[in-house]
Amino acid sequence: MSDNSKVMTEIRTLLGRKDWTGVRMLLRDAPPPDVADVLLALGKQERVLLFRLLPRSLASDAFSYLEPFKKDELLKDLSDEEARELLADLYPDDLAEFLEEMPGMATQRLLNLLDPDDRKDALNLLGYPEKSVGRLMTPYYVAVRPEWTVAQALDHIRERGRDSETIHVIHVVDARWRLLDTLSLRRFILAGPDDTVERIMDRSFVSITASEDRQEAVRLIQHYDLVTLPVVDSGGVLLGIVTVDDVLDVAQKEATEDIQLSAAVSPLKISYRDSGLWTLFSRRVGWLAALVLVNMASGGVIAYHEDLLTSSIALTFFIPLLIATGGNAGSQSATLMVRAMATGEVKPAQYTWAVGRELVVGLILGLALGLLSWMLGFYRGGVQMALVLFLAMASIVVVTNIIGAGLPFILYRLGMDPAVASSPLVTSVADVVGLIIYFFIASNLMGIPG
Amino acid sequence: MSDNSKVMTEIRTLLGRKDWTGVRMLLRDAPPPDVADVLLALGKQERVLLFRLLPRSLASDAFSYLEPFKKDELLKDLSDEEARELLADLYPDDLAEFLEEMPGMATQRLLNLLDPDDRKDALNLLGYPEKSVGRLMTPYYVAVRPEWTVAQALDHIRERGRDSETIHVIHVVDARWRLLDTLSLRRFILAGPDDTVERIMDRSFVSITASEDRQEAVRLIQHYDLVTLPVVDSGGVLLGIVTVDDVLDVAQKEATEDIQLSAAVSPLKISYRDSGLWTLFSRRVGWLAALVLVNMASGGVIAYHEDLLTSSIALTFFIPLLIATGGNAGSQSATLMVRAMATGEVKPAQYTWAVGRELVVGLILGLALGLLSWMLGFYRGGVQMALVLFLAMASIVVVTNIIGAGLPFILYRLGMDPAVASSPLVTSVADVVGLIIYFFIASNLMGIPG
Repeated sequence: MSDNSKVMTEIRTLLGRKDWTGVRMLLRDAPPPDVADVLLALGKQERVLLFRLLPRSLASDAFSYLEPFKKDELLKDLSDEEARELLADLYPDDLAEFLEEMPGMATQRLLNLLDPDDRKDALNLLGYPEKSVGRLMTPYYVAVRPEWTVAQALDHIRERGRDSETIHVIHVVDARWRLLDTLSLRRFILAGPDDTVERIMDRSFVSITASEDRQEAVRLIQHYDLVTLPVVDSGGVLLGIVTVDDVLDVAQKEATEDIQLSAAVSPLKISYRDSGLWTLFSRRVGWLAALVLVNMASGGVIAYHEDLLTSSIALTFFIPLLIATGGNAGSQSATLMVRAMATGEVKPAQYTWAVGRELVVGLILGLALGLLSWMLGFYRGGVQMALVLFLAMASIVVVTNIIGAGLPFILYRLGMDPAVASSPLVTSVADVVGLIIYFFIASNLMGIPG
Repeated sequence: MSDNSKVMTEIRTLLGRKDWTGVRMLLRDAPPPDVADVLLALGKQERVLLFRLLPRSLASDAFSYLEPFKKDELLKDLSDEEARELLADLYPDDLAEFLEEMPGMATQRLLNLLDPDDRKDALNLLGYPEKSVGRLMTPYYVAVRPEWTVAQALDHIRERGRDSETIHVIHVVDARWRLLDTLSLRRFILAGPDDTVERIMDRSFVSITASEDRQEAVRLIQHYDLVTLPVVDSGGVLLGIVTVDDVLDVAQKEATEDIQLSAAVSPLKISYRDSGLWTLFSRRVGWLAALVLVNMASGGVIAYHEDLLTSSIALTFFIPLLIATGGNAGSQSATLMVRAMATGEVKPAQYTWAVGRELVVGLILGLALGLLSWMLGFYRGGVQMALVLFLAMASIVVVTNIIGAGLPFILYRLGMDPAVASSPLVTSVADVVGLIIYFFIASNLMGIPG
């Protein structure tokens, strides 16, 4: 604005005369940054008056040009309804930027003003990644100060309790809204009214940062048997809480997704019941088609050994037995490992321990199933066939078991979900590997070039 | 605890110096699960020493987080008097779970240590079938009478609250202890002290009977976002409560069991991490050996068609492709159905709807994969082979998809867990069925008697 002071005088005069229409006319076509300047130059009272006069879209545009602390100041002077309207009118990126600029406490208060949809959008834009704790948290909690008396705290709890999703757990924060402790409501009920909050604090609490994976929230709530889990930023400022009922939903959803992946179905995202035929088809066909290529490799291995098969067609009979058992063993170890990683029992760094153990288990399984195959081979094809089957079965089970156990770790290393190591994938890979091992052993022992 | 290993070093030093007060101070405010971790990490001798140093309530809380065999080990090292004290301090549901995990004789020995009342509680809880709600409930809840004033009720809550696992939810019962309502503690805090309890009742509550499956408790708590769920007998008399943290554990355990079954692993019962090699072997070998018999049937089908194969060895190349794809499609539909049944989305009575839908999905999948196979067959073996492959693949996918979708319902009808319809089982059955279909189509189209 070329001449702010002149406009300012004019506006002050108009406001003094309560000439609302005049002010509106004067500012209607002014650029938002200039309106912001005018707002900044006015006293607190006049500022609110003027702000209320602005057309809604201009108000929100001008607002986004204010300094963060001015925004906060202005918002405090507006009624909740006005603030809500204003925030809803902001462009999402302005809103996110604004929320980001605010200290944790103010962000919290503002998030409370938004309706659930807008809040979800705002949290999205605040940059919490999908499946992070930040996406899961709610701002409806009760916080008290350590220097308050229990009676004061209970008054505050009664007041705030009407809006809060849960008052089972009371949060103690300092002046900068940093989390100091979490206390059960029960402690307040059982304490004397004149005790200070500080006196009943034990300073033992569990919290999580907003950027962590939501599975970690599940683990913490489950491990510590919590009802709510406080979420803090990197500076320890309380941002919100995660409640156990949300975590139960997350745990169920994650289990469903892992189970679907375990059968090479891309997670349906919605329930099976509500999934349309097209969804069911499209979530399945990709994996099936991709695995056809792996299965073609199995066919290739057989084709390569055509001469071996024609000279001893009996070898064909045992193909399904060997490759299916290898696939089954691999599915077992892959599934055990994927679930153990999902529940946190096995950490990605423990791969040598885990794969080493599966090597031993695979050896015992290979021996047991090898002996069984030896008997079947002896019965169906004599001594030599029995030996081929024993060696093939034992080696195949050991190798496929290791593939199944190791694949989830390899996928994790590649930045993928270990659950992609599905039974169909492991089975199809085990087919190829199993055929190669089988024909290698058969051609060597039977003296027929493969 | 952020850094267990640091605490551990510190504790070892303190124990070495026999600085009992230091250890007590260090652990006094630590969360019980972390104390359990510390106990686990110590050697036997140090463990007993440390355990004896813990305040009684912390000792019993930490004890309930130990693995079953560690509990047994620790108890053996305690004197009878110490063991008696410890068991008396356990929450009844934790006690019941512990007793259940022990072999029969040991249970008896421990029951003898309990005083008559505690023994009665434990036996009561043990009287409910495994996986029933009764096993999950705790009798530590707070109940008030409708004719009491809110002030009276709060006094009672303060009094009883010291013993109760949770006072978040207050139960209103009549003179015969029949459940009339559940009210959140918050309502009492917010109500006037002279109101009667009756006045703040809404007579809207959710309860469950003790004999129901614990999965139903999971569903109710999840559906209604409850913190606790009251358990009643058939006459509506309040028996105990189930808390959401127990339910979260149940949900995770059931998901893990289903996932393990989905790969034909008999549920491990304890965590993968703590399962010994023998457990891992024995939980897997049974299914693998049983499936060998099914796989032998596949070999039998191939042997039966020996002439067909010798006259057209190219047919062999496509065996892995066809049977593996059939197995994969069957695994997918079986896994989707088992999970949908476990979460209650699909009821056992809805089998016509579910299988009908999978028939349609199977037809679309069969068509898509059939066309893909047609191309592969044309490229590798000409027009006739392409036709055989198209027909075989399409029919196999349709049939195996139906088998996978239907098997869970059949198992349920037979009184078995639908999750027994594992990927390996479905895959192995699909192999046999796939081979029969393939050779039937090939022999008819190619004019070679099968």
